[in-house]
Amino acid sequence: MGARDQREFFTVKTVSEALSGFRPERRTPAELVGLDDALGRVPAESLTAPHALPGFARATVDGFAVRAADTYGASEGLPSYLDLAGEARMGRPPEAEVRSGSAVAIATGAPLPPGADAVLKVEHTQSATPELLEVLRPVTPGEGMVRADEDAAAGRELARPGRPLRAQDLGMLAAAGITELPAYACPRVTIVSTGDELVTGSTPELAPGQVRDSSAPALAALIREAGGDPHFAGIVPDDRDALVTKLREALPESDVVVISAGSSVGARDETAVAIASLGKPGIWCHGLSLKPGKPTLLADIGGVPVIGLPGNPRSALVVFRLIGMPLVRLVGGCTEPPPEPSVRARLARDLPSAAGRLDVVQVRLDGDEAEPLFGSSSLLSILTAADGYVVVPEAATGLAAGSDVQVMLYR
Amino acid sequence: MGARDQREFFTVKTVSEALSGFRPERRTPAELVGLDDALGRVPAESLTAPHALPGFARATVDGFAVRAADTYGASEGLPSYLDLAGEARMGRPPEAEVRSGSAVAIATGAPLPPGADAVLKVEHTQSATPELLEVLRPVTPGEGMVRADEDAAAGRELARPGRPLRAQDLGMLAAAGITELPAYACPRVTIVSTGDELVTGSTPELAPGQVRDSSAPALAALIREAGGDPHFAGIVPDDRDALVTKLREALPESDVVVISAGSSVGARDETAVAIASLGKPGIWCHGLSLKPGKPTLLADIGGVPVIGLPGNPRSALVVFRLIGMPLVRLVGGCTEPPPEPSVRARLARDLPSAAGRLDVVQVRLDGDEAEPLFGSSSLLSILTAADGYVVVPEAATGLAAGSDVQVMLYR
Repeated sequence: MGARDQREFFTVKTVSEALSGFRPERRTPAELVGLDDALGRVPAESLTAPHALPGFARATVDGFAVRAADTYGASEGLPSYLDLAGEARMGRPPEAEVRSGSAVAIATGAPLPPGADAVLKVEHTQSATPELLEVLRPVTPGEGMVRADEDAAAGRELARPGRPLRAQDLGMLAAAGITELPAYACPRVTIVSTGDELVTGSTPELAPGQVRDSSAPALAALIREAGGDPHFAGIVPDDRDALVTKLREALPESDVVVISAGSSVGARDETAVAIASLGKPGIWCHGLSLKPGKPTLLADIGGVPVIGLPGNPRSALVVFRLIGMPLVRLVGGCTEPPPEPSVRARLARDLPSAAGRLDVVQVRLDGDEAEPLFGSSSLLSILTAADGYVVVPEAATGLAAGSDVQVMLYR
Repeated sequence: MGARDQREFFTVKTVSEALSGFRPERRTPAELVGLDDALGRVPAESLTAPHALPGFARATVDGFAVRAADTYGASEGLPSYLDLAGEARMGRPPEAEVRSGSAVAIATGAPLPPGADAVLKVEHTQSATPELLEVLRPVTPGEGMVRADEDAAAGRELARPGRPLRAQDLGMLAAAGITELPAYACPRVTIVSTGDELVTGSTPELAPGQVRDSSAPALAALIREAGGDPHFAGIVPDDRDALVTKLREALPESDVVVISAGSSVGARDETAVAIASLGKPGIWCHGLSLKPGKPTLLADIGGVPVIGLPGNPRSALVVFRLIGMPLVRLVGGCTEPPPEPSVRARLARDLPSAAGRLDVVQVRLDGDEAEPLFGSSSLLSILTAADGYVVVPEAATGLAAGSDVQVMLYR
């Protein structure tokens, strides 16, 4: 049996080797994206301010635009007096000017009149007469205002390539008048499910031995979370030729291909042979030092990264989170992935592990205690019952009950 | 000046009072959502398994289905022998039966034949003759297999109301044949921007004193993150009647209304008067003990929650994260919000604060050190430069440099 013989030549890598070593060069092209649709999108180039922001000196308090020097030494006991010389209006060029000995009424946000270098808070003044302002405290130059370029100087970087845009970034771009921007296209990720036992999720009644494809919709969700655009290519039986045909169709229109593989050893071997037959450089590794998730295959077929996932749904989702999501992000130009939620907790039980292997163990949180959930890697219920997972690193031979652990939280 | 006089009657609440006390009863109606679009959606009712999952006993290893009792005492030195009685095929009802003294070849995932109660791993066997299997290790009942209801018993809850669906939840629902589900409709959140100085982000050239509306697109992004459906109602000038007219239009078609208010004290007063004129029960608070973000208004007009945000963009986004996003989630039926990323760090500088007031201070992370970013609350650049923020709680009078702080990370 040729396929089985190949197992002798399996290349097994650690998860960190895979993350650092399997780095396909493929990147999606840039496309123009409107600001309304840009949340979480990855700029393909540096975005800079076309002009200074806010663009004019503005009051940041309600009060009076003044020359700071005119207020020096003012106090409640010995006020200074300034002539009221009009009002600076919101959204309009200043009409009045502040000369030595005068003040102009101004509201928060209004442009500073020429001649002024500070804004005195209304609370620190009194109106002596309708034309005369009593100043009860001094201000220093720059107080109560922002400079014309204080939010951004012209040419300053407002968003950098590789980092997904956050809400505040969109605000800043809007302030600068940037209404669309070049962003990496969302990687098109094709999911191929294989397995004689699989039927689609919409199958109302199952024949004995059949199971509905649960991995494809869960993988599609993780692809979306990673900024990808999932496409489901359907279910193929455990048959090498059928898989080769399906992959030949999928590869030209995909940025990444994910094979949610049949679960038996034979099916995995067939996947490896099918992938190896499709092109160069071919298979990068046949397995990962990872539990669950060892039977993971990474390949590059003519520049398209291909991930062959284990057949067990829990293993498939563990591997896709660890390896697949970073890969989709990489191809989509994301070099600074968003932070993931985690929490520190105390491990409720011993977690045995083999040195050199990374273990992912789902846990349920009970206060600050993390209770490991054990069971077959075919069980999705372990993932749905879990609040998150603990990683037992490759160097460790396990973690003792009571250990302080970092729980990565599912969201 | 009537509006200004009203400030004497300001009701100021703490952030925790607002979160626990301002709890509108409004909930969006349930709608049917297809599984492909259900990531992050909030189930409106408990979803249960219509039948046991996986639905049949399955092998979890490649090997041989046996009666465990037939293997007791087997060892490499003293193997047991079983008659090979056929093969269990993937995705088909079992054809063979396991009788005492016999074994049936089985692949991972295939249905257990009648009579078997365990699966022996292929590695723990040898083939003596084509019809005879040599058993080198014993198995216990239930080993190498999952029960028909081990992933879920019929009627078991697969997803609970109020918690946004995660990738693995979609997998579990797909396994159960659930292709659509009742979820709370995404709350329609109307954003009204006010301010004589404001122009839309698409304005190419600014006249002196004008600023582009940066808050509306940033708020729309936060609304989306909270599961809402943002609608921008446009910019109204600092004019009470214009605001009243706009709100009258917006209220009937909104689940939540957000007013991104003019920044001057006068504009805030006008917003309060406009809201108060629109209906009962009316204004819940006129301010929050929060920096930045004090001039925040919370109201309920005929069952529609209304948030009046401060005019400064940074303050507006701080308040919307603290108060607005939980409110949008609440109206959208989300009672278990997803976990937010955070990290512990060492504060690089003193953070002074007043007791009784909650302070939100943006920080940049440098290794495990959190460097506070200070500046006017009109500056968006403080938010775009920040990795996250530190909260100085109401009870504290500040945090000393070197303190261990929890940094909430922007994503």
